[in-house]
Amino acid sequence: MPDRRVGLWLIGALGGIGSTVALGLAALRRGLTDSTALVTALPQFDGLELDAPADFVLGGHDIRRAALITGVRSLQRRSGVFDPGLVQACAQDLETWDANLRPGTILGSGETIAGLADRTDLPTAETPRAAIEQIQRDLGDFRSRHRLNQVVVINVASTEPPSATRPEHTVLDQLEKALGRRESAMLPVSSLYAYAAIDLGMAYVNFTPSTGADLPALPELAVRRSTVIAGKDGKTGETLLKTVLAPMFARRNLRVLSWVGHNILGNRDGLVLSDPRNKSAKVRSKDQVVAHIVGYEPQTHTSIEYIESLDDWKTAWDHVHFQGFLGIRMTLQFTWQGCDSALAAPLVMDLARLALHAQRRGDVGVQPQFACFFKSPMGTDEYDFLRQHEMLEEYVRRDAAVSRPSS
Amino acid sequence: MPDRRVGLWLIGALGGIGSTVALGLAALRRGLTDSTALVTALPQFDGLELDAPADFVLGGHDIRRAALITGVRSLQRRSGVFDPGLVQACAQDLETWDANLRPGTILGSGETIAGLADRTDLPTAETPRAAIEQIQRDLGDFRSRHRLNQVVVINVASTEPPSATRPEHTVLDQLEKALGRRESAMLPVSSLYAYAAIDLGMAYVNFTPSTGADLPALPELAVRRSTVIAGKDGKTGETLLKTVLAPMFARRNLRVLSWVGHNILGNRDGLVLSDPRNKSAKVRSKDQVVAHIVGYEPQTHTSIEYIESLDDWKTAWDHVHFQGFLGIRMTLQFTWQGCDSALAAPLVMDLARLALHAQRRGDVGVQPQFACFFKSPMGTDEYDFLRQHEMLEEYVRRDAAVSRPSS
Amino acid sequence: MPDRRVGLWLIGALGGIGSTVALGLAALRRGLTDSTALVTALPQFDGLELDAPADFVLGGHDIRRAALITGVRSLQRRSGVFDPGLVQACAQDLETWDANLRPGTILGSGETIAGLADRTDLPTAETPRAAIEQIQRDLGDFRSRHRLNQVVVINVASTEPPSATRPEHTVLDQLEKALGRRESAMLPVSSLYAYAAIDLGMAYVNFTPSTGADLPALPELAVRRSTVIAGKDGKTGETLLKTVLAPMFARRNLRVLSWVGHNILGNRDGLVLSDPRNKSAKVRSKDQVVAHIVGYEPQTHTSIEYIESLDDWKTAWDHVHFQGFLGIRMTLQFTWQGCDSALAAPLVMDLARLALHAQRRGDVGVQPQFACFFKSPMGTDEYDFLRQHEMLEEYVRRDAAVSRPSS
Amino acid sequence: MPDRRVGLWLIGALGGIGSTVALGLAALRRGLTDSTALVTALPQFDGLELDAPADFVLGGHDIRRAALITGVRSLQRRSGVFDPGLVQACAQDLETWDANLRPGTILGSGETIAGLADRTDLPTAETPRAAIEQIQRDLGDFRSRHRLNQVVVINVASTEPPSATRPEHTVLDQLEKALGRRESAMLPVSSLYAYAAIDLGMAYVNFTPSTGADLPALPELAVRRSTVIAGKDGKTGETLLKTVLAPMFARRNLRVLSWVGHNILGNRDGLVLSDPRNKSAKVRSKDQVVAHIVGYEPQTHTSIEYIESLDDWKTAWDHVHFQGFLGIRMTLQFTWQGCDSALAAPLVMDLARLALHAQRRGDVGVQPQFACFFKSPMGTDEYDFLRQHEMLEEYVRRDAAVSRPSS
Repeated sequence: MPDRRVGLWLIGALGGIGSTVALGLAALRRGLTDSTALVTALPQFDGLELDAPADFVLGGHDIRRAALITGVRSLQRRSGVFDPGLVQACAQDLETWDANLRPGTILGSGETIAGLADRTDLPTAETPRAAIEQIQRDLGDFRSRHRLNQVVVINVASTEPPSATRPEHTVLDQLEKALGRRESAMLPVSSLYAYAAIDLGMAYVNFTPSTGADLPALPELAVRRSTVIAGKDGKTGETLLKTVLAPMFARRNLRVLSWVGHNILGNRDGLVLSDPRNKSAKVRSKDQVVAHIVGYEPQTHTSIEYIESLDDWKTAWDHVHFQGFLGIRMTLQFTWQGCDSALAAPLVMDLARLALHAQRRGDVGVQPQFACFFKSPMGTDEYDFLRQHEMLEEYVRRDAAVSRPSS
Repeated sequence: MPDRRVGLWLIGALGGIGSTVALGLAALRRGLTDSTALVTALPQFDGLELDAPADFVLGGHDIRRAALITGVRSLQRRSGVFDPGLVQACAQDLETWDANLRPGTILGSGETIAGLADRTDLPTAETPRAAIEQIQRDLGDFRSRHRLNQVVVINVASTEPPSATRPEHTVLDQLEKALGRRESAMLPVSSLYAYAAIDLGMAYVNFTPSTGADLPALPELAVRRSTVIAGKDGKTGETLLKTVLAPMFARRNLRVLSWVGHNILGNRDGLVLSDPRNKSAKVRSKDQVVAHIVGYEPQTHTSIEYIESLDDWKTAWDHVHFQGFLGIRMTLQFTWQGCDSALAAPLVMDLARLALHAQRRGDVGVQPQFACFFKSPMGTDEYDFLRQHEMLEEYVRRDAAVSRPSS
Repeated sequence: MPDRRVGLWLIGALGGIGSTVALGLAALRRGLTDSTALVTALPQFDGLELDAPADFVLGGHDIRRAALITGVRSLQRRSGVFDPGLVQACAQDLETWDANLRPGTILGSGETIAGLADRTDLPTAETPRAAIEQIQRDLGDFRSRHRLNQVVVINVASTEPPSATRPEHTVLDQLEKALGRRESAMLPVSSLYAYAAIDLGMAYVNFTPSTGADLPALPELAVRRSTVIAGKDGKTGETLLKTVLAPMFARRNLRVLSWVGHNILGNRDGLVLSDPRNKSAKVRSKDQVVAHIVGYEPQTHTSIEYIESLDDWKTAWDHVHFQGFLGIRMTLQFTWQGCDSALAAPLVMDLARLALHAQRRGDVGVQPQFACFFKSPMGTDEYDFLRQHEMLEEYVRRDAAVSRPSS
Repeated sequence: MPDRRVGLWLIGALGGIGSTVALGLAALRRGLTDSTALVTALPQFDGLELDAPADFVLGGHDIRRAALITGVRSLQRRSGVFDPGLVQACAQDLETWDANLRPGTILGSGETIAGLADRTDLPTAETPRAAIEQIQRDLGDFRSRHRLNQVVVINVASTEPPSATRPEHTVLDQLEKALGRRESAMLPVSSLYAYAAIDLGMAYVNFTPSTGADLPALPELAVRRSTVIAGKDGKTGETLLKTVLAPMFARRNLRVLSWVGHNILGNRDGLVLSDPRNKSAKVRSKDQVVAHIVGYEPQTHTSIEYIESLDDWKTAWDHVHFQGFLGIRMTLQFTWQGCDSALAAPLVMDLARLALHAQRRGDVGVQPQFACFFKSPMGTDEYDFLRQHEMLEEYVRRDAAVSRPSS
């Protein structure tokens, strides 16, 4: 693929994940880090023609005013991660990409997220359509200025409160009519971005539990615009373990009596989640997976608490109580101590590469074969991580089988 | 299958696993417990014609003199497991089966195991062949007295020290010649039992890390006698988790730096394992699985310590140190608190049912499709639990596809 | 002390703690268990003339109708505790004490607790004074029928929601006037019992976080009636550990950044605590101790969740994040798995013995030297467990020094 | 104390602890860090006239050739600790102190430690006396060149294998005669240093489990030379917790059944401890404390394993099994994740300040009041951390009471 250039546009670009994606992309293109934690760098993906790190141009929206390096240095200082030499060597790339950052919209984002905004130049829109058009101007400008062959838009912003699905959300024609109303709550803000991206024929991935493209009308739009959708809610730590361990209990016919998960973390995500409305969307996404896998409903409880001193080090304690032979009750507990941004960032890059590739090969609409990356996968009921991963491997094998003869 | 009767012969019948198998079999046939923890009770096994609990007659060898109920009551008192009402209701069955217990051999079993023997009527044999013939008299007598259609012999005895493979072990003809020598160390005691069972055309399963049928000559004998072999070392707890979690790290391209596992337990198995020679066989079996799965060699360390107060409650603490994106190091720890006998017993029953079924359908030799039950599976290099389970499910599906037309 | 008989009256007698106190008292008097877990059985208490288990008669209030043995058997069955033989041998004593149980009052107890009541004969009272008089009739009847030298009343009932202190609560004379009003919320139900007991000159101990005697007017009443008060909220597990570990951080000048404690349990206490109003009183009591000990306010978070399958096995996970030399952050985590009733019951007996003894030697009012038994000690600001214990040991030494010459 | 200058001489100066002491001393004198983790910075020590960080000159022996900054940068890079800016600002001080480093002796240090030596200029001595004289030349030179009022010598070198006490060790006169023999094993190397320091009238502290001054003849020498001794084996993490938690079980009359502690670490100390001979001294020191505190012998097991990837982050998992009321068995587990050097370094500074002060005020011989700093305290049988700390506070109060009138 000679002289290809592709765009990765991050919604919430200045957060921990966004900063780490930027640093990681720069480090990879400069050969300063290896590909550990990039799923698409595994040998089984060798058959796919994926975009290389050097092919990417980064841009994004954020409601705060800062430079990408600021987020990186904050993670470095507060969470003790990132080699200082590596950060220094990548600083120039991050500065270049800063020029691609644009003020985001807060129309319908809820108070807690709006309260994080510190820019005075946030665009104001009176209707969802006006907000979408502002977003599209930014996206279109990014594409044309950098002469990008393709763009993927990925939502890595803080979780918004859950919102009810409305009748207008189910049919694309009705949704389009409703966008002109002066009604800020008509679409959640994450869906404004999703609409904007898909409508421009860009690939769209939702790495958060926010609504995004998870409304019936938006896959319809994706099909019409020949682009792809994947989501939602990146599966990085505690939930990943749940979807690996629950299948073990199921296959051994051990009965899960209760599954309690406590998560503590201290980054901006944690702060937003300390608002019970925003938290509820996240907890729902984390809490459902066990019942989906075992096929019955053990008592479950999931909590997320903001503990400032932990910064980006999310710590989860899970307590699984299960019943074995002759009614005997036993316990499995685990503690997971992971750096949230460093777990998420490579998966965001994987999804960018896979979504762009899927669009190129002609796939449209929701892509269920990317389920292994998500807590609440769209387009499939498969929650078992290893089965999800096999769906992906099978997709890769089929693709390789198809593309090889032509090469 | 009208009027079928099958035999389950346990080597080490009076240990924790043996006692629990006896209690469980009695409880299941009397409808006093449900099938939780029996893998073969899962719906995906419905297509196989497996023997029902009521079809089984129990017998076994042991080097101690006791009744089956003694082991059950000891577990009940020391480990606080088993409902007293259930034990009472099953006592009669256990007493009936006591009549099928025979004194085992200690020829070549090593000092620590020999030290547990408390019978004065242990048979003495001067050659391996003589010991095998004594064992075969007991097995043959069991089969004829109870008019059994089939017998499966399962080793659930304490772990013996590792022994070197000799030239005579590799070819059946040479082995047969060597059996007559007055050389007690010629075959480890677990292999004497394996030889005896296989030579009589009985199915043989090794639930321990001892050698058993894991010598080239014995699969050869199994083919000649039209019977099946499976093993070795039942995968009940900590190692099960390793073979579920290691694949997660591999598929996420997270690099395992070190994996430390500490096991503490206080039952007779633990006591035998406090002899370093016996422990080494067990630790080797537990320690190898991670490297097999991830494809490189992280630093690993596995310990097993005898802590008397824990009785049958094996507690394992595992500490996994791994590297993510940009070189960041993270940690997963788990604690597993399981009742060892109650974890093992249903798997022993599963293997009895599956081995008898395999022999009936004409399979011979080593059965790799039972790998998911073992720490050190024979006949395959697959250590990933969920892939092992798929091997089993695939086998079940193929069998059902074959047997359905004929039914 | 020849022919002494003393009464132990439990408010909430049929709960897990009450049942275990009854079983334990019976087992101790029959010599069926040793004195493990009884603090007052340690050698340093030898100098005190404490009542022996055989001197005690048991009675109590409860809003449910059941027998003491029912609670014991429920713990035995659901939580797998208590030796069946021991329960059998003590059943007669428990039945005898059942005759001393009386229906409790729910005046002002809050909905969640009232919802547990299953008796149709609960006394109805229109004023706090009327409720107190009903309680006093039961207490007085117990004392006279059994010719008791002394009675101690201990609150082991479920936690009530917190209630505001009113002006009438601060001065005894005003409180007495207000008791006649038809106003059910005038005093929380735990304080009705406290008033009733103290007013009869009985010793009163509050083992719960409910208000009880923790109103300024009630110590005043205790002094007037020559009796003693101790409380509140028994320190049995997670909080005990907090008050042992926090002093370690303080003495090593390690800075606690955050202390998170998650408690899960499945007994009736847990059920009551799943009502956020009742939970708030408990969490406040557990959450405050760290700041009291270290002298500054680290971020703290304490949760209690009702997880049915755990029954009486309270499991706590605490995560302590602290800063050491040169700003380096480190972590201590602990998991506590304790049987709640078995931890509490011996402390209830200790407090009964100590309170009766204190009253006999002429102490009156709040007894701060019993602080080591409580999460929220009355009459002292000392939260450090080992310092609290030294207060108790010092008291015992002084007492022994005084009483020895006279003996 | 105008114009005082004191010397801190570290045996094993280039290890993790030594490097961190150097960095910490520099950071404190430059006001770049606060006094967190320095016990002697707590208000209760305000009454003592202790030397300020700026009063100290650093020197030491090591068998490796390196600069102090090398160890610091290694910890920074491998364990992710120390702020880069702080290290930069202190580099000059460390370089100045490098000039005070001298090659150590390996006479009688055992193979594993000797194998770490990488200097070709290590002094060779044919007799213990000759080795002592070489050490004394270095110490004397340090004292005179820097015109030091006092010097304290602290052993922070790797643990040596345990050695048998000989008759010559018990009486000073006999020891002095034996020092001239050509017998390298006559005194362990740690005792050569101890002898050398004490004989010069310098204070001596042993922060390791090696023998050091723990031979009857050496306190005798200390009295004769008017200097002080303290030791041994700094109590920084897992053992600190044991000596805080075991007293809790004792005071609550809960019976400890077993206490298992597994330690994993990856620094040079860990490497030395992977030699079973060196490990045995350490394990003995860690393993004994529980029995000393509870007054009986629960089953205990302590392990230390070298896990390279952990570097300086020592992780300990302890499992405590205990029996409560009515024979019920419960569990406490903890996980400690601490940076070993950062835990030890401030205690080394505390001991330097306290030992110099004790010598100034006229104390001589073993100082038991410093027991709270050690796993195996010399001169006392008190292992309970909080009681040990009270011994220290009492000593401080007495000292303040004495010194105040004179001031």
